[in-house]
Amino acid sequence: MADTSKKTIILFSGELDKVLGAFVIANGAAAMGDEVTMFFTFWGLNCLRKAQKTKTSDKTALQKMFAVMMPRGPNKLEMSHMNFAGIGPKLMRRAMRQQNVSSIDEFITMAKEQDIKMIACTMSMDVMGIKPEELIDGLEFAGVATYLGEADEANVNLFI
Amino acid sequence: MADTSKKTIILFSGELDKVLGAFVIANGAAAMGDEVTMFFTFWGLNCLRKAQKTKTSDKTALQKMFAVMMPRGPNKLEMSHMNFAGIGPKLMRRAMRQQNVSSIDEFITMAKEQDIKMIACTMSMDVMGIKPEELIDGLEFAGVATYLGEADEANVNLFI
Amino acid sequence: MADTSKKTIILFSGELDKVLGAFVIANGAAAMGDEVTMFFTFWGLNCLRKAQKTKTSDKTALQKMFAVMMPRGPNKLEMSHMNFAGIGPKLMRRAMRQQNVSSIDEFITMAKEQDIKMIACTMSMDVMGIKPEELIDGLEFAGVATYLGEADEANVNLFI
Repeated sequence: MADTSKKTIILFSGELDKVLGAFVIANGAAAMGDEVTMFFTFWGLNCLRKAQKTKTSDKTALQKMFAVMMPRGPNKLEMSHMNFAGIGPKLMRRAMRQQNVSSIDEFITMAKEQDIKMIACTMSMDVMGIKPEELIDGLEFAGVATYLGEADEANVNLFI
Repeated sequence: MADTSKKTIILFSGELDKVLGAFVIANGAAAMGDEVTMFFTFWGLNCLRKAQKTKTSDKTALQKMFAVMMPRGPNKLEMSHMNFAGIGPKLMRRAMRQQNVSSIDEFITMAKEQDIKMIACTMSMDVMGIKPEELIDGLEFAGVATYLGEADEANVNLFI
Repeated sequence: MADTSKKTIILFSGELDKVLGAFVIANGAAAMGDEVTMFFTFWGLNCLRKAQKTKTSDKTALQKMFAVMMPRGPNKLEMSHMNFAGIGPKLMRRAMRQQNVSSIDEFITMAKEQDIKMIACTMSMDVMGIKPEELIDGLEFAGVATYLGEADEANVNLFI
């Protein structure tokens, strides 16, 4: 075990349920005093997108298509099961509220307040054509080498 | 490395193939003398549901719907690919029998016999409205803090 | 932390995007001097299949069906999202080329050159009826006990 009690989570998945799982673990660990790094890659970047369209230049046609098709931010995420054309996530969000579970928006705010390091994967951003200005503030931007450096210092490393 | 050779597995997924993967690793590690903790959350709880409907009180309409739609126990699990409206899992189970691979039912029994600690995630149970009496016997009930405590003592931590 | 800086990755998933993620991390770690073991199981085996049909004897009807339905090699992999009947992966591959990200084929060659240990899970091969001669050269064949031995020596273990 590394002498710090650091944790890292790669969030590769973009579905509401998996994103929730990632933030529950990350914020839970931070609340217990752990240093936490979240590395957002591929579909995991979607929960960091701003809800409104951001004007960007120099996207390829392909990247424009990606931008239109992928959900913008936590309130547009689908479920990995029982999505039912968008009704599933609505019911899931209602169930979360009824049980006093924070929303993804609230978990992201909490993550920032707890100094969780949130890194957006630059390779995924390049492939999917996501520009830094399309993502929420307070992120770092880096690649796999940075992730591996963080993971080497941690004693729990998850891929979600 | 922690001085124990403890392993933890978060089982988030509910598909037959992923559940099988989780139990193969967990039972394999226990057979080699490792202490093992499995933490069942979200769809991962479905393999722990009793096959028959259990009478429960005080469910919201939403939770009742979840209860009806989600598979009850290992024999109802779907595949993550090639599900084909339920034919895939049937073929998969047959292939497992033909190759002398244990069924999920057998793996769960084996897990109990090998003293694998099986924890059902209380937050997921709340959100999905799953009551303890709907799940098989021999489980513990706890949240993310308990998982993190277990993971801190382990040298291999997987999220499946 | 184990004194080596070894990494292991279980590649359970077969989608282009997840396979890419696995090989980026594996090759990145190897480039930084880490020892890396990849353990290919279930759908993760598909990226190791030869593109052309290989003549095999003694398959059950079920295994023949699996063989026909599962993608043969990296160029047939689907996406976990936005697959659109095969258009998604084509666009994804084009985006990867445009951003100078290696193809899966190239990543596999790179993995071999960097001495990444690539192990095909024999239990999955049995269940799915995949024969060693159907897979690319340079693999080892082993089960969960071998994986656990590798993971015990590593400080980062991911399940993808």
